[in-house]
Amino acid sequence: MTHTNHQWKRLALESFIEIAQAPYATFESIGKLYNTLNDVESVKQMIDYLSRYDQAKQAFQKRPAVGEIDLQYLHRLPEQTLGYQYADHIVRNAIAPVHLPVAESEHSYLLTHIVETHDIWHVVTGFDTSMAGEIALQTFVAAQLHASRFSLAMLAKNLLKTAIEEIELAEQRLDALTEGWIAGKQAACLVGIEWNLLWETPLNQLRIQLNLK
Amino acid sequence: MTHTNHQWKRLALESFIEIAQAPYATFESIGKLYNTLNDVESVKQMIDYLSRYDQAKQAFQKRPAVGEIDLQYLHRLPEQTLGYQYADHIVRNAIAPVHLPVAESEHSYLLTHIVETHDIWHVVTGFDTSMAGEIALQTFVAAQLHASRFSLAMLAKNLLKTAIEEIELAEQRLDALTEGWIAGKQAACLVGIEWNLLWETPLNQLRIQLNLK
Repeated sequence: MTHTNHQWKRLALESFIEIAQAPYATFESIGKLYNTLNDVESVKQMIDYLSRYDQAKQAFQKRPAVGEIDLQYLHRLPEQTLGYQYADHIVRNAIAPVHLPVAESEHSYLLTHIVETHDIWHVVTGFDTSMAGEIALQTFVAAQLHASRFSLAMLAKNLLKTAIEEIELAEQRLDALTEGWIAGKQAACLVGIEWNLLWETPLNQLRIQLNLK
Repeated sequence: MTHTNHQWKRLALESFIEIAQAPYATFESIGKLYNTLNDVESVKQMIDYLSRYDQAKQAFQKRPAVGEIDLQYLHRLPEQTLGYQYADHIVRNAIAPVHLPVAESEHSYLLTHIVETHDIWHVVTGFDTSMAGEIALQTFVAAQLHASRFSLAMLAKNLLKTAIEEIELAEQRLDALTEGWIAGKQAACLVGIEWNLLWETPLNQLRIQLNLK
């Protein structure tokens, strides 16, 4: 199963170095790494692995998108709901909405779904957008997707940045890494959940259902 | 506490890339990364942290070296002893002996001690020399030393290699990472132990004393 394409490996390493060198990674450079590392073979491995879960298997067939989100409506929901908490997360972190093309294959659906639901995963896992929170989410995603080259590379980038720039935060970040990994293995499969049917559900209830703490 | 020397950061990143790009890291390139990342400031942080343990504090003052090791003698000891298990590890993995200069400061003592005892730590922790074993030992060391830029950078290198070259081993390696981190936090301080007084001690007895599983 080892990837043997030398040109691809060089490209992957170059995309990594571009992100590791920059003070702040741009969306463009992250997108480049995402597209490079999500090669056909590893995405197929993820789809095969996830297809053991009915929910994910059905999602690969029906390909439901989260689509347009009415943040104003969500922000008027009761505070304990997923919808309010999600809107609050988006507004507080000044996150720009992503507009993604309709997925035309299982491959593109999985890649789009992961990007589209990234901030919902932040909210349901409770991992924030600090580097420690992102690290926890990266190992959570690695556990859930089983073969995510991108999550591991972003994790490697964050550990390298910690080594070189903020070694005093090593303990906090390795604790977060461990927490995310264990949580990702213990939780129910999050891939393929139709979140836009769950905005009015209390977040705590969802966490219990999904075996999230 | 953040390092702000731009030239140093560039050098650190270059040393990392050199190792990440090579199919197998040479001793020379690892040595370069070790020397670059162990800057005066972070080594002082490690010494300050470790000095809370009498054993480490005394070691920084007396600076006892493991020194020359008589592998033939160790290999004749009973099988359950640290000495036999260490000799067996060295022979099985065809590890060349390291000859290190006498440490003339706390700084150089810590750096020499870590290199000199690396394979003893392999034996007492039970983490082997596969990449999973090295990853476990890297987080173990990171937990024990508290501010080890080198351990984190080597960990980042191994996760990047896993992402690009062996994604099918991600689960095994993240499990090892977590195991090493938890073990390193739970274990007694290993820095400053005079291992050459313990060759005849049964390994299991040492593990119990050091709170290693």
